[in-house]
Amino acid sequence: MDAPTAYARLKTRFARLTHLEDAAGMLHWDLSTVMPEGGADARAAQLATLRAVSHDLLTAPEVGALLDGAERDEATALDPWDRANLDAMRRQWRHATVLSADLVEAHSRACSACEMAWRGARAGDDFAAVRDKLATVLSLTREIAAAKAEALGRSPYDALLDQYEPDGREAEIEAVFDDLAADLPGLLDDALAAQGREPALVRPAGPFPVERQRALVRHLMERIGFDFRHGRLDESLHPFCGGVPDDVRITTRYDEADFSGALMGVLHETGHALYERGLPAAWRDQPVGRALGMSVHESQSLLMEMQACRSRAFLTFAAPVMADKLGAAPDAPGWDADSLYRLNTRVEPGLIRVDADEVTYPAHVILRFRLERALLSGDLALDDLPGAWRDGMRDLLGVAVPDDRTGCLQDIHWYDGAIGYFPTYTLGAMTAAQLFQAAVTAVPDVPEALARGDFAPLLGWLRTHVHGLGQSVTAREMLTRATGRPLDAAVFKAHLRRRYVDRAG
Amino acid sequence: MDAPTAYARLKTRFARLTHLEDAAGMLHWDLSTVMPEGGADARAAQLATLRAVSHDLLTAPEVGALLDGAERDEATALDPWDRANLDAMRRQWRHATVLSADLVEAHSRACSACEMAWRGARAGDDFAAVRDKLATVLSLTREIAAAKAEALGRSPYDALLDQYEPDGREAEIEAVFDDLAADLPGLLDDALAAQGREPALVRPAGPFPVERQRALVRHLMERIGFDFRHGRLDESLHPFCGGVPDDVRITTRYDEADFSGALMGVLHETGHALYERGLPAAWRDQPVGRALGMSVHESQSLLMEMQACRSRAFLTFAAPVMADKLGAAPDAPGWDADSLYRLNTRVEPGLIRVDADEVTYPAHVILRFRLERALLSGDLALDDLPGAWRDGMRDLLGVAVPDDRTGCLQDIHWYDGAIGYFPTYTLGAMTAAQLFQAAVTAVPDVPEALARGDFAPLLGWLRTHVHGLGQSVTAREMLTRATGRPLDAAVFKAHLRRRYVDRAG
Repeated sequence: MDAPTAYARLKTRFARLTHLEDAAGMLHWDLSTVMPEGGADARAAQLATLRAVSHDLLTAPEVGALLDGAERDEATALDPWDRANLDAMRRQWRHATVLSADLVEAHSRACSACEMAWRGARAGDDFAAVRDKLATVLSLTREIAAAKAEALGRSPYDALLDQYEPDGREAEIEAVFDDLAADLPGLLDDALAAQGREPALVRPAGPFPVERQRALVRHLMERIGFDFRHGRLDESLHPFCGGVPDDVRITTRYDEADFSGALMGVLHETGHALYERGLPAAWRDQPVGRALGMSVHESQSLLMEMQACRSRAFLTFAAPVMADKLGAAPDAPGWDADSLYRLNTRVEPGLIRVDADEVTYPAHVILRFRLERALLSGDLALDDLPGAWRDGMRDLLGVAVPDDRTGCLQDIHWYDGAIGYFPTYTLGAMTAAQLFQAAVTAVPDVPEALARGDFAPLLGWLRTHVHGLGQSVTAREMLTRATGRPLDAAVFKAHLRRRYVDRAG
Repeated sequence: MDAPTAYARLKTRFARLTHLEDAAGMLHWDLSTVMPEGGADARAAQLATLRAVSHDLLTAPEVGALLDGAERDEATALDPWDRANLDAMRRQWRHATVLSADLVEAHSRACSACEMAWRGARAGDDFAAVRDKLATVLSLTREIAAAKAEALGRSPYDALLDQYEPDGREAEIEAVFDDLAADLPGLLDDALAAQGREPALVRPAGPFPVERQRALVRHLMERIGFDFRHGRLDESLHPFCGGVPDDVRITTRYDEADFSGALMGVLHETGHALYERGLPAAWRDQPVGRALGMSVHESQSLLMEMQACRSRAFLTFAAPVMADKLGAAPDAPGWDADSLYRLNTRVEPGLIRVDADEVTYPAHVILRFRLERALLSGDLALDDLPGAWRDGMRDLLGVAVPDDRTGCLQDIHWYDGAIGYFPTYTLGAMTAAQLFQAAVTAVPDVPEALARGDFAPLLGWLRTHVHGLGQSVTAREMLTRATGRPLDAAVFKAHLRRRYVDRAG
């Protein structure tokens, strides 16, 4: 038997890394759903060891040599999937090795301290209480960005972005975000005017018992294509999609006064879950078999929630199902498709990103994208952040921010060291709109099928053009091949206008 | 800062090993309780990788050198706990390194194939269908036993036993088992006679809804000392105690026609769980902080189930609690303490070990201990196993074995390669009786406290004399210190006679 090639040895090693990452993913799910509080320290030790062992496997001296050897001797003969796999290995290795252990350690400690301080600062509306710790995080993040920028040949912000959005570019994001931002104030005015012309909204009367809500969301999950032989639905404080592609676990939380939050949350997470399930089965344990990045992942949840499930077509199908499963008479007030459509497409500018509707959400993200770039470059001093936040919210959404608690202290991300992450939310929304339009163009039956509660035509298209590709192409290539063009704000803008001004989609 | 010593470096490495083992333990729990069937392959890959990574960590060339160095340069200066910790490391390393990778692999494959074949063979009552595969397992087990015997300086059977029962010795087991076996037939006759003199047993009338059973067992678990901030109770096909000391997870299964099985099963597993919880917290991630071995572990479950919870004292307390929680009137037939005591101490010789009562269980184990030693040494040919089983069951219990399905095919253990494991069940039962007697001698209030449902005096004694010792002493030393003598069949025999002949305990 011949000795395995460098690439074959890398595949063995990266399969182990995948399994360790999957094991950690399952332990995270457990921690968030069923773990008793007293298990926290033991679990933290387990996860820290999994991280340490994975880091050692990824950064062992021989890995660099194997990558060099495989790229030199084998790359040209590899098929495109293996070639992309090798590239993904190199990318992962680069992110893991470019930083000194001291810098990683200092950053990790600074983030923990800052996140801890942020909890108190937010509760007490006291930005000053966390300012110095955030300054430390920011300063270490600049060091990280500089080191990764040099290794990747990118700008510092692009180097951070690459952690979440492989090969993402701030210049491209800036262009589409500016395009969108220019249109948003007018769109919002028009949407509010359209909404104002409608009769008063009648909401379905609760309470909605948790057991009935659970039956409803499970029913609709299965309808959409979630396979409970390969996944679970549970409850957690912060809903998420976790687990592994063959055992995808989504969570939600129920409110007996309002079923819509859990329902739309679950449909959102189901979009994430279907993406994971649809990743190429032959490449389960290799980097090329994993999801493309955060914006594509978010595009799949938003496509399912926003494009498909908040549409008039789907809600026409779902209205009687909701009434039935929640124990209401189908002709009771608020249970008709039009009321449910209006309930699920209500626009209201507000202070809090996670509560925002589809029209105003991008403004929250664009503000954060602009501010985090300015903070990173030093154009914005940390002391000026609260004021810049107020100015931005006034300019973009016309809302007055009364305090920092509902201003620049609201999100955990920066305080936990995640800089370069925020844009993926709105990139995902735009990608979703563009992919959905392409699916409808390619498979014209998609909207009528949704109106029958049939997701097969849509899911089939997504499996072929998105899910099944794994990381064999970049996000940019995937989108261009699937839709005929790179990311473009126009489709998303048209979708928003159609739904919120014309009230048609 | 000085470079860490060899022993300090070993501690760091073994902490990692503990965390990986703990992570695998949690994933096993998940697999048995909540994992969807479609997650099986992914989970198997995760567990295999955790095993492989752990094996690499434990058998890396530097570990042997570190052990040599620590034993040579540091051992004499170590305190007793560290010294015992170093010994436990050496023992674990020896078991992992003494076998060639080829032998481990061949054995693992043979066991998987044999276990698979056994499932069909048992269902079809066809010993011949699994005979050759069991022969392969046995032959590889002999190779393993020979290699470990040489490394440990033990007999081959003792070398296998050491995997489950550190420092166990077949000669000692043989002596106590022979002592017990000599007494059992007479004891059984007397017990059946005593039982025959009692009026007909009235059983509580069901059904017993699962929700009510769950409330009952949770209530009693807490009463005994189970802390739900550090553990869970769930359901699984095969009840077990898993998880980690600070997050102990026990499982059961419910039968609406009979609450006694789930109840006593849970009290049994609670004994295991309390042992895990009581292990020395300062040594959580080191070998010396782990449980002593299978017989001590089983002694803690059997002490709780058999010595404490099937006693007249406890059942006097528990009878009205059971009636209340299960929704029966306390004076309804079968709910009085005497009936429940008789229900829970019923003796009936039978074919199946896992269904056996406290009096007949040891005969099942003694038979297996004798047979597996004869198989290993070659004194018993595999073709003679079914006949030897029938002879043994007739001699020890006076029952006629009608087929191999209820004979030598009933247990998975041998077919899965576990030889040297069976004796730990009855060693555990004997250890439990001896420890319980010592607890009562030291803390005379224990029985009255149990009659009040108060487990604190008993648990306090166990924490000090068993749980908190971890592996700082051998099982033999622990028992001698706690009870004043080594393992001795007399106490267990006296317990059986008192409970089943005198009907007093």
